[in-house]
Amino acid sequence: MAEPGAAMESEIHEVPQAIGVAARAAEDVGLRQPSGVVLFARGSSDHAALYGRYVIEALAGIPVMLGAPSLATVYRAPTDLRGWLAIGVSQSGETREIAECLSWASERGATPAAITNAPHSQLAREVDVAIDLGCGVERAVVATKSFVAECAALASIAYGWGSRDPDWEQVVEIGKRAVETPPDQALVQAILEAEFTTVLGRGFGFPLALEIALKIMEACGRWATGMSWADLVHGPIAALPPQSTCLMLNESGALSASAHRLLVRLAEAGIHPYVLGMPAAEQVDEPLRPLLDSLPAQLAVLAASRRLGLDPDSPVGLTKVTQS
Amino acid sequence: MAEPGAAMESEIHEVPQAIGVAARAAEDVGLRQPSGVVLFARGSSDHAALYGRYVIEALAGIPVMLGAPSLATVYRAPTDLRGWLAIGVSQSGETREIAECLSWASERGATPAAITNAPHSQLAREVDVAIDLGCGVERAVVATKSFVAECAALASIAYGWGSRDPDWEQVVEIGKRAVETPPDQALVQAILEAEFTTVLGRGFGFPLALEIALKIMEACGRWATGMSWADLVHGPIAALPPQSTCLMLNESGALSASAHRLLVRLAEAGIHPYVLGMPAAEQVDEPLRPLLDSLPAQLAVLAASRRLGLDPDSPVGLTKVTQS
Repeated sequence: MAEPGAAMESEIHEVPQAIGVAARAAEDVGLRQPSGVVLFARGSSDHAALYGRYVIEALAGIPVMLGAPSLATVYRAPTDLRGWLAIGVSQSGETREIAECLSWASERGATPAAITNAPHSQLAREVDVAIDLGCGVERAVVATKSFVAECAALASIAYGWGSRDPDWEQVVEIGKRAVETPPDQALVQAILEAEFTTVLGRGFGFPLALEIALKIMEACGRWATGMSWADLVHGPIAALPPQSTCLMLNESGALSASAHRLLVRLAEAGIHPYVLGMPAAEQVDEPLRPLLDSLPAQLAVLAASRRLGLDPDSPVGLTKVTQS
Repeated sequence: MAEPGAAMESEIHEVPQAIGVAARAAEDVGLRQPSGVVLFARGSSDHAALYGRYVIEALAGIPVMLGAPSLATVYRAPTDLRGWLAIGVSQSGETREIAECLSWASERGATPAAITNAPHSQLAREVDVAIDLGCGVERAVVATKSFVAECAALASIAYGWGSRDPDWEQVVEIGKRAVETPPDQALVQAILEAEFTTVLGRGFGFPLALEIALKIMEACGRWATGMSWADLVHGPIAALPPQSTCLMLNESGALSASAHRLLVRLAEAGIHPYVLGMPAAEQVDEPLRPLLDSLPAQLAVLAASRRLGLDPDSPVGLTKVTQS
C-alpha cells in the first residue's frame, strides 16, 4: 500500500511545471476580450475562480462576477449576458451543476468556456472554448496542482487581455525551489495545536486564504475559516478565542498598513498570528505571488495530515467529484 | 443602567415597520435601470448587499457584482463601469473605505448611489442618488433593523426594475406577529451548547445564513460560520465535528431536494441540524422570505447573548462604525 498522502506529495511537486503548462494552454486559446466575465465553480476551483475575479478585473479592467449557481439552476434568472464570457472552472469537468450553469449562461447570451483538466469531460465537450490544463491526472482527493494550474490559466488570460507579459519562467523556477524546501515545522505545529484555524488574506491573497482553510478541513479534518482580514475586524474578531490559530497571508506591500493595524489588534486580544508567505515570491509580479505562496502552505497541510495519521489522498467522507 | 440588549430588543421590534419604510423610500427614488450593478459594503451591510445581488439578478435580470474593496482602494483596477450603477450600502454612511470605493467607481464611469440610515453622512452627501432607510437611530452595535431595512430597500429596487409589485403590507403584518413570538428556547439552547456553529442556507437564504453567523459571533462571542450547504459538501463537511451545532435555513421549495440529501448526509455524520424558518414566511413571495426569517433568529441570538451575561448593545471590542 502506498504511503498516506503519496499522491498529494507528488502532485505538489508537479505544481511548478503545471503552472507553466496551464499558462501556455490558456494563452494559446487566444480568448477574445468580452464586455464582462462570469465564473462558475465549486470547492477549490471556486477559490481559483475568485482569484480569477481579482486578477482579470485588476489587469484587464473587465467587470467580473462570481456566478451564483442557484440563480442559474434553481431560479433561472433572466440575466442579460450578451457580450459576456461565462467560464466554468472544474478539475474533472464532471460536476453536473457547473455544466448546468454554463448551459444557462449560454441561453442568456454568454459565450460558454471551460477550464478543466479533462478535455473529454462533459463540460469541455459542451462549451464553445475549452482550455485544457494539461497537468496530468490528479489522484489525491485533496486538490493541489489543479488549483494552482487553474489560477495560472486565469492569470494568463488576464495578462493577455491586459497586454502584459509576466515572466512565467521565473515563477516556475522559484516554484521548483519551493517544493524542495521541507515543510515549516512551526506552521505544521500551529495547525495541529489549533481547535480551529482562521486563515486571513486580502486582495490577490484572499482566495488563497479560503483555499488553505479548505485544505486544512479536507486533509486534517479540523475546522478552519478563510477570511479577508478587513472583514475580520467588522465583527468576527469579537469571537476569536486566544487559543485558536491564526494564519496570515501578507503578500503585498500595498496592504501592509492595514495588516500592521490588524497585527496590533490581534496582539491585544492575545493572538499572535503565524505569517505565511515566501520571501522569494516577492520577486515576481504581485498578482502571481499567491501561486507560489500556495506551495509552502500545501506542504505544511500534507505534513500535518500525516502527523494526525490521516490520508489526504482519500479523506473519509469525500470523493474527487462532488455532486450536490 | 439599561438592561443588557435593551436597544437590540427594541430595534428588533422596529424591524417590521422599518421594512415598509425602507421599501417605500427606495421606490420613491425611482432609480433608472442600469446595464450592471456593483455593490460595496462591509459586515452586516455586506450580507444585505449579497442579498441584493441575488434579488436584483433574479428579478431584474441585470448582472450584479459584489465589489471587491481592494480592487478599488488598493489596486485601483481600470474597470470599465460605464452604464453601471455603483451602490454603497452602509448603516452609518461613515465607513471611509466604502466612500472611497464609490469614488473609484464614479471615476470608472458608474453612477454612484448609496443606501444609508444617515442622510447627512459623508457617503450620502457624496453620491448622485441617496436612499435614506429612515428606520431611526440604531444604537445596538449588533445591527438588526438596519440589516433588514437594507435588504428591503434592495428588494424594492429589484421588484421595481422587474416590474413586479410585492405585497409589502403582508410582509409587515407577518413581521409584526413574528416579533411578538417568544424566542425558540431549543434554538437558544443549541446556540449556547455549541463550541462553534455553522449556519447553512442557499439561494435567497444564503446571505441570511452569513448574517446569523455574524450575529452569533458579535452578540455571543462564539465562533460561527455561515455557508452555502452546496459548498459544505465540497469539502468542509469532512471537518464538521458531531458536537458542533448546525442551523439550517430552508426557505424554498425549489431547494428541497438538495436540502433533503444534505440532511441525510449530516445524519450519517451524527449531526442533526436545527431547521430555521417561520412557516408564516411561506405566505410571502419567495425572495422576501429571508426578511421575515431573520426575526426569530435575531430574537434567539439576543436571548442567547443575555443568557451568557453579555450585552449585545455594546460587545467588548466592537464599535458601531468600523474603520479598517
